[in-house]
Amino acid sequence: MALIVQKFGGTSVGDATRIRNVARRIVAAHEGGNQVAAVVSAMGKSTDELISLAGEVSRSKYPREMDMLLTAGERISMALLAMAIQDLGVPAMSLTGSQAGILTTSVHGQAEIIDIRGDRVREGLDQGMVVIVAGFQGFSPYSRDITTLGRGGSDATAVALAATLGADVCEIYTDVDGVFTADPRLIPDATKLDEVSFAEMLELAGSGAGVLMARSVEFGRRYQIPIHVRSSFHDGEGTWVKETTMEEPIVRGVAHETNDAKITVHGVPDQPGIAAQVFEPLAEAGVNVDMIVQNVSHDGTTDISFTVAKTQADVAREVTEVVADGIRARGVDVDPDIAKISLVGAGMKSELGIAGRMFRILADHAINIEMISTSPIRISCVVRGSDLEAAVRSLHDGFALGDPSKGGSS
Amino acid sequence: MALIVQKFGGTSVGDATRIRNVARRIVAAHEGGNQVAAVVSAMGKSTDELISLAGEVSRSKYPREMDMLLTAGERISMALLAMAIQDLGVPAMSLTGSQAGILTTSVHGQAEIIDIRGDRVREGLDQGMVVIVAGFQGFSPYSRDITTLGRGGSDATAVALAATLGADVCEIYTDVDGVFTADPRLIPDATKLDEVSFAEMLELAGSGAGVLMARSVEFGRRYQIPIHVRSSFHDGEGTWVKETTMEEPIVRGVAHETNDAKITVHGVPDQPGIAAQVFEPLAEAGVNVDMIVQNVSHDGTTDISFTVAKTQADVAREVTEVVADGIRARGVDVDPDIAKISLVGAGMKSELGIAGRMFRILADHAINIEMISTSPIRISCVVRGSDLEAAVRSLHDGFALGDPSKGGSS
Repeated sequence: MALIVQKFGGTSVGDATRIRNVARRIVAAHEGGNQVAAVVSAMGKSTDELISLAGEVSRSKYPREMDMLLTAGERISMALLAMAIQDLGVPAMSLTGSQAGILTTSVHGQAEIIDIRGDRVREGLDQGMVVIVAGFQGFSPYSRDITTLGRGGSDATAVALAATLGADVCEIYTDVDGVFTADPRLIPDATKLDEVSFAEMLELAGSGAGVLMARSVEFGRRYQIPIHVRSSFHDGEGTWVKETTMEEPIVRGVAHETNDAKITVHGVPDQPGIAAQVFEPLAEAGVNVDMIVQNVSHDGTTDISFTVAKTQADVAREVTEVVADGIRARGVDVDPDIAKISLVGAGMKSELGIAGRMFRILADHAINIEMISTSPIRISCVVRGSDLEAAVRSLHDGFALGDPSKGGSS
Repeated sequence: MALIVQKFGGTSVGDATRIRNVARRIVAAHEGGNQVAAVVSAMGKSTDELISLAGEVSRSKYPREMDMLLTAGERISMALLAMAIQDLGVPAMSLTGSQAGILTTSVHGQAEIIDIRGDRVREGLDQGMVVIVAGFQGFSPYSRDITTLGRGGSDATAVALAATLGADVCEIYTDVDGVFTADPRLIPDATKLDEVSFAEMLELAGSGAGVLMARSVEFGRRYQIPIHVRSSFHDGEGTWVKETTMEEPIVRGVAHETNDAKITVHGVPDQPGIAAQVFEPLAEAGVNVDMIVQNVSHDGTTDISFTVAKTQADVAREVTEVVADGIRARGVDVDPDIAKISLVGAGMKSELGIAGRMFRILADHAINIEMISTSPIRISCVVRGSDLEAAVRSLHDGFALGDPSKGGSS
């Protein structure tokens, strides 16, 4: 008998028929002799509908009430799912984040999970019930208010709950088959990966692979909970994210990200403390900076480039222009038309020459590299937005990641 | 400065525009120098939509999950209302039944309020906030589950909260102007009452006047909280329900009820203990019996008639037929085509001859009385359903309850 935590997103519980399908899947796992806790998101478009209602009643956003409003969404889906499961003859009970003991910080809309008590989840499981837990939401013991976890919150709930319960696996059901060597929408012969290490998945998630958010992978790694990312449409195996013990391949996959903009501060006086003067104000303004590159200086000045989310580009520009003025830099330039391409693989640690091969492949395809950043198991290059597809394609082929059965060009 | 509890039903918060209207009304009371707590129901049709969704996912009803599901409704309306109030520049906070400390029994769908802690409501009010509390819902300290209060639950929440807070008044906003001498849909010249005593309102509510449920009136009486039933469409005074000290009129109004069926057990052996044999099994089957009439016996047998809600008539018939067989009664007869007409007035206690006048008026209009029951301040008669309108009309005229300015026939 295993203890399984399953997570179903908004699309999987989008209407009554889909909820009944999810119920059948849960019941099958339960009847296979497992203890099952399921984490659910709000039904399909219901969150958007609630947000639009909020826009109709008030011009400003009120984070506490927004969380109160949005958490009605999971309340509905989880109660309906618990009914559908009971209708199949299996006892079930739904619990809000608060009832499940999901304790968070007090930051509405972006709370972090501090701890999961999980007493009532355990009690329910011990009584032979399927326990449904609301994803995305929690309770702040400091403010005594209901909170939401922000983007990817339901995945984080599921993995953290799995950690609390000491589950054997956390299954994340999604609308794709698993994690691929590249985005299958871009690269038709991309290969589904059977297994990815936590470290690799963290790099992939941070590099634009949207299937799993970094925060839930981090929970999985910290508590060593294997995560199984799989399709909600069929029973086939997906991708296991876990601590791999086998020898790892040099390159696991190619990820890409097109939601960033590049900001360059030109002619920065090359003095100690300048970088702090640029980036501290950005942090204070809540701007999340991704890659940072500083070139060697010429004539006592240098250029500093960095990437931020496109949605934060305007704020970043304003802040940076003030700073540039203060430090007598030559000017600030914002370029939204970029793409970031990342090669990820745990084997890179011990294998020399991967970066060189990557740059050579891109050069052979006449793709100009504008920025480079590396981690022990990742190399990322910023290229023109228009070069995105050619860059991913050429690297996927160049490192022979394609699935020959899909007739790719590798 | 007064402390006011206001209650707004589902129609009053039916869409974004109405929610903004309610917000303006609350803000006006707040800016008039009052402390305001508001109790809200779920938006208009949202409860029906949730019930229909539940019907789509499962064939049976699961009361715990049904309560979890339905309480999402107030969560949405209260969060939206709190946003709309803040948008008008007044601090506001919404609280679930559980957060407001509304403790109930564990009976899902029909929980009773045991106690209201109200600490967070008080804190919010003391900080100058408008506090919005979810109506209709509570928390059972026994099962640790979310409960709903059943029909009229939001009114009960409002009056009980007013009692806890020691409010000066509980205002119930509704789609009618107040309590009338008769149903204005039936009797166009019915008069709006400025004042009704708790005892009278209890009898009116129990006799079919739908504007306020008996359970909330009972709370008001027990804790001496004046209830102001008023229109949500205009600022005019409604009806005050409170302990009256003035001399009371003999007849306050005529109420009617058409949701009952009459069941008669014919030829019951007239022996001690027979009534218990009939009514105990009904109570065990959960059937709520309203009026009971037993005639004097002829030849050692008697007829026992009683009324039950039409929705319980089938269950009542089944139970009663088994009993009738057991006690060798002649047979059971169910008649759904009845109406109950009640005359209510605190002055009846001390005034002789009201019953006689009532029966005479009905006789003069050729209306046959099938059952009679009385309390110190009420006389109820069961008549044919087809006689309903004539009966209410003739009594309303006969006791001169009409408003002459509306051109009635009295």
